[in-house]
Amino acid sequence: MIGGLTRSQERAPSRAETRRDHPGQRSGKPLIESDRVEGTAVYDRSGKRIGTVERVMIDKISGRVAYAVMSFGGFFGVGADEYAMPWSLLDYDPSLGGYRIQITAEQLRSAPSLSRARGQDWPDRQSEEELHDYYQVSYYWLVS
Amino acid sequence: MIGGLTRSQERAPSRAETRRDHPGQRSGKPLIESDRVEGTAVYDRSGKRIGTVERVMIDKISGRVAYAVMSFGGFFGVGADEYAMPWSLLDYDPSLGGYRIQITAEQLRSAPSLSRARGQDWPDRQSEEELHDYYQVSYYWLVS
Repeated sequence: MIGGLTRSQERAPSRAETRRDHPGQRSGKPLIESDRVEGTAVYDRSGKRIGTVERVMIDKISGRVAYAVMSFGGFFGVGADEYAMPWSLLDYDPSLGGYRIQITAEQLRSAPSLSRARGQDWPDRQSEEELHDYYQVSYYWLVS
Repeated sequence: MIGGLTRSQERAPSRAETRRDHPGQRSGKPLIESDRVEGTAVYDRSGKRIGTVERVMIDKISGRVAYAVMSFGGFFGVGADEYAMPWSLLDYDPSLGGYRIQITAEQLRSAPSLSRARGQDWPDRQSEEELHDYYQVSYYWLVS
């Protein structure tokens, strides 16, 4: 039971365990802890490591994970540029011990940015649509 | 744009900003960062602080947040018991600067635990149903 787990039991998985538990993976544990996703490496389609997942962004209303925010700065890279990728782009690759995305770092850098609407500090819906269209994935707010 | 934001711009919100951005809140930013949820205080219905959100648990298939895992051990309490609450129970209360849940600490401690099925290290569906039934909230895997 989670209720009876000590933090150490719950939170000190072996490296192997950590690397097996990821959202992109369709087998293994059905649930993944947010703090296991953060800090996980991201590889491009050629298998080259291009960055690290810094956090996920959750849609408040639906409770759905909308984006993985990736940093090119490596682990905890302060000041590194961050790129939001639709969550559905990420697939966990056990052989790599991280997420593999089917795009290149160049494609990622060329992706539309999540610009803020005037007076807002969050992405406007139009820029979210442009980002999803660029990656040819379904809008997370329409997926049921 | 997120793509152009430096980590410091993206990740160094004022305390006030941090406290305004939460999933339980139906106003403000539509998206909330996972690492802003982690470490946020939880208050019971009487306004008494009872613990801290340690992490959220994400359903891999749907990408939906299923649970908030709360620790009674306060911030970063090592070895503290952890309790999973259905995500839908949490509502952000700006006046408290944290989540308020409409139950008491005693009700939380008395809640069914997310027991692991034989040979599994994750909750079985039956214990998940019992937990949702206890709190009288909809099963996250049925919400569209």
